[in-house]
Amino acid sequence: MLYPVVWHNDSVVLIDQTRLPNEYAAVEIHRSEDMAEAIRTMIVRGAPAIGVAAAYGMYLGAREIETDDRQVFLEKLEQVADLLRSTRPTAVNLFWAIGRMLKTAYEILGTVAEIKQTLLETAQAIQLEDLQTCQAIGDHGLAALPKTPEKLTLLTHCNAGALATAGYGTALGVVRSAWREGRLTRVFADETRPRLQGAKLTAWECVQEGIPVTVITDNMAAHCMKQGLIHAVVVGADRIAANGDTANKIGTYSLAIVAKAHNIPFFVAAPLSTVDFELADGSQIPIEERNPVEIYQVGDTVLTPSGVEFYNPAFDVTPAELITAIITENGAFAPGNLVCAYSTGTVG
Amino acid sequence: MLYPVVWHNDSVVLIDQTRLPNEYAAVEIHRSEDMAEAIRTMIVRGAPAIGVAAAYGMYLGAREIETDDRQVFLEKLEQVADLLRSTRPTAVNLFWAIGRMLKTAYEILGTVAEIKQTLLETAQAIQLEDLQTCQAIGDHGLAALPKTPEKLTLLTHCNAGALATAGYGTALGVVRSAWREGRLTRVFADETRPRLQGAKLTAWECVQEGIPVTVITDNMAAHCMKQGLIHAVVVGADRIAANGDTANKIGTYSLAIVAKAHNIPFFVAAPLSTVDFELADGSQIPIEERNPVEIYQVGDTVLTPSGVEFYNPAFDVTPAELITAIITENGAFAPGNLVCAYSTGTVG
Repeated sequence: MLYPVVWHNDSVVLIDQTRLPNEYAAVEIHRSEDMAEAIRTMIVRGAPAIGVAAAYGMYLGAREIETDDRQVFLEKLEQVADLLRSTRPTAVNLFWAIGRMLKTAYEILGTVAEIKQTLLETAQAIQLEDLQTCQAIGDHGLAALPKTPEKLTLLTHCNAGALATAGYGTALGVVRSAWREGRLTRVFADETRPRLQGAKLTAWECVQEGIPVTVITDNMAAHCMKQGLIHAVVVGADRIAANGDTANKIGTYSLAIVAKAHNIPFFVAAPLSTVDFELADGSQIPIEERNPVEIYQVGDTVLTPSGVEFYNPAFDVTPAELITAIITENGAFAPGNLVCAYSTGTVG
Repeated sequence: MLYPVVWHNDSVVLIDQTRLPNEYAAVEIHRSEDMAEAIRTMIVRGAPAIGVAAAYGMYLGAREIETDDRQVFLEKLEQVADLLRSTRPTAVNLFWAIGRMLKTAYEILGTVAEIKQTLLETAQAIQLEDLQTCQAIGDHGLAALPKTPEKLTLLTHCNAGALATAGYGTALGVVRSAWREGRLTRVFADETRPRLQGAKLTAWECVQEGIPVTVITDNMAAHCMKQGLIHAVVVGADRIAANGDTANKIGTYSLAIVAKAHNIPFFVAAPLSTVDFELADGSQIPIEERNPVEIYQVGDTVLTPSGVEFYNPAFDVTPAELITAIITENGAFAPGNLVCAYSTGTVG
């Protein structure tokens, strides 16, 4: 099993996802500032994994606060929260995990030392819950996949795998469950420009599991669909609005449109912590814009001439009407019925 | 002005398009085998430019044939034609230009020396005609663009520019004409994976002309459309079937689907030599599959882990119903009316 965020020897050990697939290296994080930087630079990435990492980042920050005064402690913890929140604006799991850690701190009425201990336990609980959530998503997703043909090829975008979560993955959780049950023949992985998480991370995870994987450039997906090579699309999510509109890695929206044009089911797999019920629809989701260097340089190679401008939105929003179902730990739901995910454990 | 194929000092001078934008280098081609290799390796690329290069390649091959026997000469010229035809299967301009050169050779009843001279003149005529054709396409395209807003942003894919033709370009011919008339504010250029002709060549051409250009990854186009950043899409073509179905660089089909989803007009700009009336529809167009290294390596950087498979179709087919108009040297035509392009010089 693959765990991108691990609590070990009083520090957080991250798999450095910027070095994969060429190098499998770990980074030890001891301070909240270093965790913020690791999230910003995408050493750890993927909405649920960012949530887990931020939860541990809150504990690391709490540990650094040298006071026995509860009020002073909470004020300083709010500053840690602000720092961690500033790293990546789109994924709501980050805000959700930080919020849960803060709430825990406020609710514990014991000493500062007791609050700190509870924060560590809460971060560990968030991690464990996310792993269990992903396994449930995988199994609910398997149940939601088309019944025919018996053997499916699934297309995915970016990396919503073990690396993007506490483990097992969301979209790749569905892939793993389908593979385990013998319903999967092959994964098509969009390379996912500009940062190539599909070519690098999803491909790597599939190879680790022995799942046959074909990497294509993002613009080949429609052609593959037309050829009948794809039976369903499964992607992750960074934030889902109350109506089911879904922010995910740039290119997801395009993929959803072309899937619809070919009558291919399009699934979003995400924990309920990804749903932001405070947003009525996706138009209010903030879209992170990242450094243009991600577009114009690959390795040491500069692709473009000087004098060119760039636009580098890291995410886009897929409207609910293009989504067949949202697969959560409580079952698969039509986007419009997402609210039912909180009141039922069955497929809605 | 920019000419990718030039006849100079008894040889063909090609701009080496594999080195742009970092290096502006010329390659002298003296033999038909070298021309075949230059086409195969994409030193020269773009359907109309391939046609011009192949025409000169036929002359270079003719020049190498050491015989005064007309029949022997024609037999050996057929072998040159076979070699050049084997380089790239999708672009029909290649076959069209070779066919025209062969027909010329068969029709000249003079000596072998006279045939050779006529072949050189025919190659030069093909080149000049393509340049004039592109200028006509540019102006017809300008007339076909949306009338509002006054100032347009156009999105293009791959490079259908001066570099892809004898000069001026097809899709970028429309861009150049729109820029000249003050109707263009900006070009959005899809980077166009895997070979990045948009990021490298289209961006470079725009910078040369002083046209503001924003490079995006291919998967950002739909998001840009949703934001209202794009008023029309203009692309080139490698082969157009009788019904208007259009083979063009991989990703064009996807782009046409997302343009339709946003009610954005989608134009194909191509000379009539790109139309293959022998094919009833696009399903019969052969799609070249290229080496996977184009996907998994950029510069010296290998992107993917070992154990991964790849699929690398170089082209896809956009069905006629997704195309607003096909802009030819005889005017802009609804795809279904393409046959009218041969009987009229006005917009149909």
